[in-house]
Amino acid sequence: MSTIDDRSSTIDAGTAYGMASGTYDCDLAEVGPGTPMGELLRRYWHPIGLGEDATDVPCAVRVLGEDLILYRDRSGTTGLMYPRCTHRGTSLLYARVDDAGLRCCYHGWAFDTEGRCTDQPCEPGNGRQRDRFRQPWYPTAERYGLVWAYLGPPERKPLLPRYSTFEDLADGEQLFTDDRNIGSGRYFRGDVPFNWFQHYENILDAAHFLWLHFYHSGPQFGSRYGEFDDLETPPWEKLTGQTFDTTQTGVAGTRRYTIPDGRLLRTVTECVLPTIRGVSNPFGEPGPGDSLGFVLPVDDTHFRIFTVLRGADRSFFERIASLRPDGDPPPERAQRFPGDWEAQGSQGAITLHSEEHLATSDRGVRMLRRLFREQIDVVASGGDPINLAFGADADLIEIACGQFFDDVG
Amino acid sequence: MSTIDDRSSTIDAGTAYGMASGTYDCDLAEVGPGTPMGELLRRYWHPIGLGEDATDVPCAVRVLGEDLILYRDRSGTTGLMYPRCTHRGTSLLYARVDDAGLRCCYHGWAFDTEGRCTDQPCEPGNGRQRDRFRQPWYPTAERYGLVWAYLGPPERKPLLPRYSTFEDLADGEQLFTDDRNIGSGRYFRGDVPFNWFQHYENILDAAHFLWLHFYHSGPQFGSRYGEFDDLETPPWEKLTGQTFDTTQTGVAGTRRYTIPDGRLLRTVTECVLPTIRGVSNPFGEPGPGDSLGFVLPVDDTHFRIFTVLRGADRSFFERIASLRPDGDPPPERAQRFPGDWEAQGSQGAITLHSEEHLATSDRGVRMLRRLFREQIDVVASGGDPINLAFGADADLIEIACGQFFDDVG
Amino acid sequence: MSTIDDRSSTIDAGTAYGMASGTYDCDLAEVGPGTPMGELLRRYWHPIGLGEDATDVPCAVRVLGEDLILYRDRSGTTGLMYPRCTHRGTSLLYARVDDAGLRCCYHGWAFDTEGRCTDQPCEPGNGRQRDRFRQPWYPTAERYGLVWAYLGPPERKPLLPRYSTFEDLADGEQLFTDDRNIGSGRYFRGDVPFNWFQHYENILDAAHFLWLHFYHSGPQFGSRYGEFDDLETPPWEKLTGQTFDTTQTGVAGTRRYTIPDGRLLRTVTECVLPTIRGVSNPFGEPGPGDSLGFVLPVDDTHFRIFTVLRGADRSFFERIASLRPDGDPPPERAQRFPGDWEAQGSQGAITLHSEEHLATSDRGVRMLRRLFREQIDVVASGGDPINLAFGADADLIEIACGQFFDDVG
Repeated sequence: MSTIDDRSSTIDAGTAYGMASGTYDCDLAEVGPGTPMGELLRRYWHPIGLGEDATDVPCAVRVLGEDLILYRDRSGTTGLMYPRCTHRGTSLLYARVDDAGLRCCYHGWAFDTEGRCTDQPCEPGNGRQRDRFRQPWYPTAERYGLVWAYLGPPERKPLLPRYSTFEDLADGEQLFTDDRNIGSGRYFRGDVPFNWFQHYENILDAAHFLWLHFYHSGPQFGSRYGEFDDLETPPWEKLTGQTFDTTQTGVAGTRRYTIPDGRLLRTVTECVLPTIRGVSNPFGEPGPGDSLGFVLPVDDTHFRIFTVLRGADRSFFERIASLRPDGDPPPERAQRFPGDWEAQGSQGAITLHSEEHLATSDRGVRMLRRLFREQIDVVASGGDPINLAFGADADLIEIACGQFFDDVG
Repeated sequence: MSTIDDRSSTIDAGTAYGMASGTYDCDLAEVGPGTPMGELLRRYWHPIGLGEDATDVPCAVRVLGEDLILYRDRSGTTGLMYPRCTHRGTSLLYARVDDAGLRCCYHGWAFDTEGRCTDQPCEPGNGRQRDRFRQPWYPTAERYGLVWAYLGPPERKPLLPRYSTFEDLADGEQLFTDDRNIGSGRYFRGDVPFNWFQHYENILDAAHFLWLHFYHSGPQFGSRYGEFDDLETPPWEKLTGQTFDTTQTGVAGTRRYTIPDGRLLRTVTECVLPTIRGVSNPFGEPGPGDSLGFVLPVDDTHFRIFTVLRGADRSFFERIASLRPDGDPPPERAQRFPGDWEAQGSQGAITLHSEEHLATSDRGVRMLRRLFREQIDVVASGGDPINLAFGADADLIEIACGQFFDDVG
Repeated sequence: MSTIDDRSSTIDAGTAYGMASGTYDCDLAEVGPGTPMGELLRRYWHPIGLGEDATDVPCAVRVLGEDLILYRDRSGTTGLMYPRCTHRGTSLLYARVDDAGLRCCYHGWAFDTEGRCTDQPCEPGNGRQRDRFRQPWYPTAERYGLVWAYLGPPERKPLLPRYSTFEDLADGEQLFTDDRNIGSGRYFRGDVPFNWFQHYENILDAAHFLWLHFYHSGPQFGSRYGEFDDLETPPWEKLTGQTFDTTQTGVAGTRRYTIPDGRLLRTVTECVLPTIRGVSNPFGEPGPGDSLGFVLPVDDTHFRIFTVLRGADRSFFERIASLRPDGDPPPERAQRFPGDWEAQGSQGAITLHSEEHLATSDRGVRMLRRLFREQIDVVASGGDPINLAFGADADLIEIACGQFFDDVG
């Protein structure tokens, strides 16, 4: 038998033997009550459903790790309730809407949209002490076709913001909504099964946009203006004109590229806090972006995306849908032509940050993480994070994303 | 930006923000070996199957959190075994019944119904030392068409009780059995997926009977004697004649109500320890109840119900079955017309007692919990709980449930 | 009521009441990194797939509790990678094979089969510092139609062994491979869902061979030479000629039996470390075994079996397959005619060693466990376990299994 020394001439380097287990960064990944990111996110209004999801048949929603019940009362007001009836714990999913509000099926206790008990039909005098009971609730509001909720500390509740993208509609323009997770790489109603932040930071990952969607599996988004027809030039050369900036509202990435006809195309993509996707319309005309996506962190390992579109019709949604048909592709096809779903989802339900090796092309990702960590610290030290308005004159958030030919009017 | 003071004028009260996590009462909910409720329940015989479930093909059953194997040997005696063969741990689910008893498939060790090893065919002399091995077992017995088992301390084993409901059959009367969970709100063979006690205490929840089954989703049980045709009178007025009493055998609820033709109807519903449902037959004639349900706690989060009926035929079972057809209703239908399954099941696999707010209409529930806690204490301090018989003259449990017109013979 | 004394005359003995919870032996069962058995097993090469599993479409494999990606590069070399790309953690399951090696879909980092980074297309100059990054990998090799991997400490990597069964092929002989878990009792591609060792030790369980496969459910393997036609003689008499020996390579069991025509049949079955099944071909001619099974511990509760056959064709595989058709038999059929799958699988995902009562017929099992414990100690104390070769002259493992008529040439 040989000795250890004999063997050492061919010892393998860099094998996986003895690797430490990877870990994820709790601050970036966890969204439940009391977590640093969870408390930051709870300082903002989040869309939790389309307007039409709130009806007289209660609807279960999950938001930031909390199970809740969304409904609409007879006056048309939306309500969002802790699901367990404060009486005996039966779910208000089985409650009915009547003139008293939302009424539990088990013993008939009824509540208004702010959780006040309005009737106890099995208690003497219909509940002479019913004012002592309150169903835990959250405030809701409707805007842009979405139902929004605020799950944070009541004394810090901001105004429901407006976004420049959806204000001052021209004649013939309307707003349209979609809840099929546009931007996730598949197009369906339901939860995307991995952590929201590894999706969200991908928006500022300019390198993946070129590599994954054009060089590897592409073209996955058409090749507007012919800017990506050339796959001979290495992508890093095309990325040299890329800059990232922390703005008043988030982080923006700006790509400048000379298209084949000689014009300089400037594309602005941005992450606006808390969870807004500001991405150009791949089928759209030059100009400001005509839609925004709102990522809803369902819990640590699931998210949804609601999209609001400004335009003449909803054809944009259907063009997107046709790129990535509903349903799971056959496994080998997903392997041969992966998209965002595969690239981000295969990082795991929560990616392992300890195993990453960020490079120069990840600087947008790095800036976004830094901004979130700063805002987490602001909240932890008692302050208000960015993009909150407490006076009506400050409730408009300016959105910068879009695609522009700067030499054009 | 506004100051905190500015905002406080509209601060929301009673929201779900910052709610503590709810907890359940272990003593009421947990049934496994060594738990307080588990030890109380283990002092009684429980039905674990229909007589026809015990055959020469072993049958897996789960009782009080323990996985066991039920079978019938060639002499017709039922047996209940710890599933892992004491030799090498192969499940006796794959054993065969032959003249030596129950014989493991792996190496042929055979056992009688009391776990004695009767053969070891691969050991010299067919196992000259086989008396040293014993398969863990539990005593069983058959009565009323059911197989009963005692999982408690051997030195405390009581007599298998008789129930007045099933004694002294008249000519033309027989006993019939059903294992489709009558009373759970769905009608099927299998486990109901939530804690047995939140089902069991519901029996004494008179308010839910009126609200859920008549005012909310009803009528779900017909409207015998027209007593519930009036849904204008608030239910609390109808509940004023309701009394609850702790009896020698459990807790009984008595409802008195004047039906439209002027007669006074008295209905007695009772929980008889350990798990007996004494409920009136909604299709039956006045008089003592003609069936009893036996709730089997399968484990902390599942239960089954066995029902024994005294009568001329089993049509009662089919009438019940027709009220709640087998299978899951479409979700929206379950939401619009919830029953016991939805009301109790949506409390969770185990309800969170810490979040409850019991009211006056819950006094039957409150009394039952108090009785169980008292009996848990009796067991913990070395005593015998109620409804146990150790001498044959004391083995009859009198059942009081039924519906009566007191002014009628 | 009777007193305790009155009752004691009939107190049941040996019931399951109050049984302690069973436990398993971690050293025998656990195979993950850092466990005693896991480190022993990591000192050997293991087959992880058929040669044809390694293609340009990456394939997920799980080995000793580690998730890995198997592929083949353009030069034909097999590679085995830690699945998470060292850049951002996207799974290399979605990577593509090109001239640069295996290239991640997300940002295009490429690696050779030893994990060296060969390209970073989105980094300046295609990654001027790419030598600083290395994808964790494991060494692989191909032999006998299988892909083998070494997951152990690099400085201890042995030579890939050869087995006498597959050397010196005669004219007309070839090697054939199968990955349908021959020997598990079912015949399918996929993981067998219980601990590998409770399968592996069964190979030396001579008693089960007689009892389960002939007396209980048999004949499950034909009745070659008529040796098992007599089921009147108790199996223990047939087992008296059985011996077990710890050999240089593992543990071997030798059964001697006079078949009806008077000849003495000698059958040798052996477990060769680390996981080799040396079992006679039930359809074969007298002589050395013509196949070996290699058990792959997938993780603590799953395993696979790869089989290599030496012969003129692969008809052996199909004859085995016809004994146990693919798929799950109906439950009652599995209960009436259990085989290895039921006998071993129903011991649990991991059997509970603390509840076993080994007997004389288990001495092969006992010897195998002792050998593994000794080898675990050798590894723990810094030594090399048996069956490792570090010099090419020592890389041949002699296999002894087979069936022989000793009085025949």
